[in-house]
Amino acid sequence: MTEFVTTALEDGVLVVKLARADKKNALTQAMYSALTDALSQAESDLAVKAVLLQGNDQVFCAGNDLEDFLSLKDLGQDSPILRFLTTLVRFKKPLLAAVAGPAVGIGTTVLLHCDLVVAQQGARFQLPFVALGLCAEAGSSVLLAQRVGQAKANEWLLTGKAYSSEEALAQGLINQVVEKDVCATGLAMAKQLAQLPSDALVTTKALIRAPFQAEAEKAIFDEAREFVRLLQGDECKGAIRAFFSRR
Amino acid sequence: MTEFVTTALEDGVLVVKLARADKKNALTQAMYSALTDALSQAESDLAVKAVLLQGNDQVFCAGNDLEDFLSLKDLGQDSPILRFLTTLVRFKKPLLAAVAGPAVGIGTTVLLHCDLVVAQQGARFQLPFVALGLCAEAGSSVLLAQRVGQAKANEWLLTGKAYSSEEALAQGLINQVVEKDVCATGLAMAKQLAQLPSDALVTTKALIRAPFQAEAEKAIFDEAREFVRLLQGDECKGAIRAFFSRR
Amino acid sequence: MTEFVTTALEDGVLVVKLARADKKNALTQAMYSALTDALSQAESDLAVKAVLLQGNDQVFCAGNDLEDFLSLKDLGQDSPILRFLTTLVRFKKPLLAAVAGPAVGIGTTVLLHCDLVVAQQGARFQLPFVALGLCAEAGSSVLLAQRVGQAKANEWLLTGKAYSSEEALAQGLINQVVEKDVCATGLAMAKQLAQLPSDALVTTKALIRAPFQAEAEKAIFDEAREFVRLLQGDECKGAIRAFFSRR
Repeated sequence: MTEFVTTALEDGVLVVKLARADKKNALTQAMYSALTDALSQAESDLAVKAVLLQGNDQVFCAGNDLEDFLSLKDLGQDSPILRFLTTLVRFKKPLLAAVAGPAVGIGTTVLLHCDLVVAQQGARFQLPFVALGLCAEAGSSVLLAQRVGQAKANEWLLTGKAYSSEEALAQGLINQVVEKDVCATGLAMAKQLAQLPSDALVTTKALIRAPFQAEAEKAIFDEAREFVRLLQGDECKGAIRAFFSRR
Repeated sequence: MTEFVTTALEDGVLVVKLARADKKNALTQAMYSALTDALSQAESDLAVKAVLLQGNDQVFCAGNDLEDFLSLKDLGQDSPILRFLTTLVRFKKPLLAAVAGPAVGIGTTVLLHCDLVVAQQGARFQLPFVALGLCAEAGSSVLLAQRVGQAKANEWLLTGKAYSSEEALAQGLINQVVEKDVCATGLAMAKQLAQLPSDALVTTKALIRAPFQAEAEKAIFDEAREFVRLLQGDECKGAIRAFFSRR
Repeated sequence: MTEFVTTALEDGVLVVKLARADKKNALTQAMYSALTDALSQAESDLAVKAVLLQGNDQVFCAGNDLEDFLSLKDLGQDSPILRFLTTLVRFKKPLLAAVAGPAVGIGTTVLLHCDLVVAQQGARFQLPFVALGLCAEAGSSVLLAQRVGQAKANEWLLTGKAYSSEEALAQGLINQVVEKDVCATGLAMAKQLAQLPSDALVTTKALIRAPFQAEAEKAIFDEAREFVRLLQGDECKGAIRAFFSRR
């Protein structure tokens, strides 16, 4: 569907790679659809024991493609973004992410659905929704506070300030920081999980998610409804226009 | 209604100031009512984009006035305290606090309803309810653990130990510590939020609160019922009497 | 019922001691029953104001006895383990733990039900369920994340890595680390709580637990159902056999 998302299976780990580095892996509608397909296939393929989401050792994901956003009319349950988010929030196998460089918007919120996250020094996490006239998405209104506590969640979502790998680790957003070779480290972590008893892994993940699964799914839809409303408002149009004029 | 709560609007920020410094801003029934009025007006005034709650650079709030407590007979939904707490928990616009010196009892629990909190070095946070024969209030039985984790929440609420600004920051109760001029810093933070797109801010705050809004409101009432029961019991009367005899 | 659990009352504190040190206090069915009896009596005895759970200053609890596990057929609500867990999760008085040396499996998950936990330097916390082909238990799928955040909870439960006292404190699993004499420190902390107004203590604990009480109880049963299913599967049998062959 798109050359910008590639997959490869290695020792039980499906590596799902964002490969649009010249645009800092900003996600297009086609890329969301490709990610959905990759996760769906990983779910049903018995050879896949864990999934690693990554960009490369320079860039993870700069967020949703903003030009793509401007043409977005709908975030219904059959839209590429919502199909991706519902597949993501319901994904049953271990999911890991390796983060380098920018992790902006969906680049950070996707991490909230990952079981383990490793980031490289110099990574930059940011949730600039409000400054763009938008709101929390991808379940982040529920899931962020579960990792970093309510005070930091408020701060990250409302102010849109950027955070370093070190701060993301100290606050509990991620699990580990490495100096370099983050994708290799992520793959090693994923292979370790892939070697553990599968039923035990999947069952434990399901038990961990059970208490907030319904709430996270509901949040994704509640957020999407507000997101698309804001996207069509003047605040957001002005903010995105200002963003482009600054470039 | 009282000279001990003042308000001033500056660049979209309503500054709500506790002004009973000779009593360390201990809250009386009249002050709760004045705070309720201030928040209600802030909610409906389109010119108010954010609210800053503060004392001065020496004292935030030493808690409920204990002499006032001794005459308290009722914590029903129309009592000044409960009216304040329900207005606070439902407040829709960004709410910030600047804390210096003592933040005792309600002086700490009010912070759990603030989106961003800055404290000055030397501030002292304390929840001495149990030692006074009382119980958690203002939704703290739900909201404190969301910020500092369940282990610290148990410790703060059960032992009543005091904590410094630095520990409050490390545990996630607050967002920032400054050396001095905490009220000016709080105002600067509030002005920054006030300049962001309003609809996006209010929508994101509502989404963040949605998962625990009903639970927090219920906790306020459940706590109040137990609080007023304990207040009329011998444990509490003895503890408050001992407190006054130590002064 | 067993000599491996002893109790002693001191200044309002019931000290419940695991006393099977040559087996690192690994818990047998008989020990679970003795713990249930100790908690039940503590609940009804007006002289007991707080309970301290401890081993000695070398060892807290190495987990469930694995040989005992192999003969386990049932984790229904009348089984010794489930009776212990339901008594534990519903226990109304302040419960503390003093941890030295290994705190493995139930040795860590029991702490999630304690109001205050002190650990000694050199203690080692580990949740090796998945590596043994098993899953989260004792409510840990809900309660661990409330203490250490979702990212660390995922990591501890899925990878089964061991953690030090210092890391357990930094992440919020426990309240304090001491260099030595952990049992004496735990007793001193328990005596302090025992001197506070009882009604206020018990009421505050109940308020703190109210928001997640039902969820924690449900998790214990949901986990037990999966646990016993996994225990009878080949993954788990192979993993436990491998464990014994490594010894």
